Amino acid sequence: MLPAIMDSVRIVLVNTSHPGNIGGVARAMKNMGLSELFLVAPSNYPDPQAVWRAAAAVDVLDSATVVDSLAEALADCHFAVASSARGRRIPWPTLDPRRCAREILTRAEAGARVAVVFGPEHSGLSNRELQLCQLHLQIPAAEDYPSLNLAMAVQIVAYELRMASMAADLPASSEAHWDSPPASVEDMERYYLHLASTLAEIGFLDPAAPRQLMSRLRRLYSRIQPDQMELNILRGILTETSKAIADRRK
Amino acid sequence: MLPAIMDSVRIVLVNTSHPGNIGGVARAMKNMGLSELFLVAPSNYPDPQAVWRAAAAVDVLDSATVVDSLAEALADCHFAVASSARGRRIPWPTLDPRRCAREILTRAEAGARVAVVFGPEHSGLSNRELQLCQLHLQIPAAEDYPSLNLAMAVQIVAYELRMASMAADLPASSEAHWDSPPASVEDMERYYLHLASTLAEIGFLDPAAPRQLMSRLRRLYSRIQPDQMELNILRGILTETSKAIADRRK
Repeated sequence: MLPAIMDSVRIVLVNTSHPGNIGGVARAMKNMGLSELFLVAPSNYPDPQAVWRAAAAVDVLDSATVVDSLAEALADCHFAVASSARGRRIPWPTLDPRRCAREILTRAEAGARVAVVFGPEHSGLSNRELQLCQLHLQIPAAEDYPSLNLAMAVQIVAYELRMASMAADLPASSEAHWDSPPASVEDMERYYLHLASTLAEIGFLDPAAPRQLMSRLRRLYSRIQPDQMELNILRGILTETSKAIADRRK
Repeated sequence: MLPAIMDSVRIVLVNTSHPGNIGGVARAMKNMGLSELFLVAPSNYPDPQAVWRAAAAVDVLDSATVVDSLAEALADCHFAVASSARGRRIPWPTLDPRRCAREILTRAEAGARVAVVFGPEHSGLSNRELQLCQLHLQIPAAEDYPSLNLAMAVQIVAYELRMASMAADLPASSEAHWDSPPASVEDMERYYLHLASTLAEIGFLDPAAPRQLMSRLRRLYSRIQPDQMELNILRGILTETSKAIADRRK
């Protein structure tokens, strides 16, 4: 069962600057039994530095998928975790790598494909990118120098995933017996677009001054992780709201 | 107490070949709150590669002690742990990094100076060197590629030391830093009533044949505990929906 679970976890690197780090990540992944790597618009890639640092993990590099946007990298995933160094203005559900690894494997065991997302070396992920992910992950680090090298951060998370996958006592998942499969990240993005347009229609959202409304709603539904049937209900409500307004117009 | 304990832990690198790895180790140490580095007969050191990879941890490099033998590096230590990848002919007490970190901190708390020793990149520590250490440490790795980069191995051990040193004062959950108090059960019940009446208004819920709709929506929102600000948003949406329909009626 162990290899199958690890096969459901995808590492996603967003806008990586140094190809050496991509190689270091590939090696860290293979050392810990992970193999699926997605690269979102990397700089200077491919590059001999990546191959050199990958050492005997060039197969992970060779089979990596390069895409243009984080949304594309997450489209077929059911759960996404973002590595985040800084505290954000709107607090998001955040776990340390150990608790996060347990959460990821619990979801993977229930059939989900899970992505763990790492941002560019110097700036980290944007707020927009962070909000594409249901859970944030923070590596506890020293206050006077909290910024880990990218490949080191991946190594720690991959190590915790391996430790968790080897532990016999994964928490029993309530989702293991759920009655409808989880909605995908792509479906949720479509829902947020639909929601924003309906909220504008009823005058609750001002598209010219949206403030933090959509961020707060994203955070709320991220915590829920709706299943497909629930998402159908939520979308049905939006559709009927629009119809009800239109009917009164006649 | 935390910094004092971490100050009792020394990282020792034996016969390191690549100066870049020494820099990577310095950064990994400082990120995790360690500062004492001993280098046993390193090759090509000092070197600009070490400085580059150390990034903002050059102070750890600058204060590193270079010695000629492992025995010298361990002379004033009370307990030494050796990182070992291979199974040895003579079995030795061996722990994974997590258990090892607990053992190290227990000794450090009791006043011991503890060394964690890492061998050369390609060959690892010799049997003679391994036997200078009371305990061996093995990082669980994939069978098809168990050889971690040196700095990555140090990163994992330093991370486990940090996690163990923080164990007493970790926040129980991410909600410890949430920005709005949770909604009460009473508030949620009022919300469900409001939701049902609005859904009837837009024609999505048939009060005569409600089926499982409200149960499914309850289950959905029960999976999280909405905070008060989120609940205000959810109720605001319902209020504006009713108003939008009423406006059209005029």
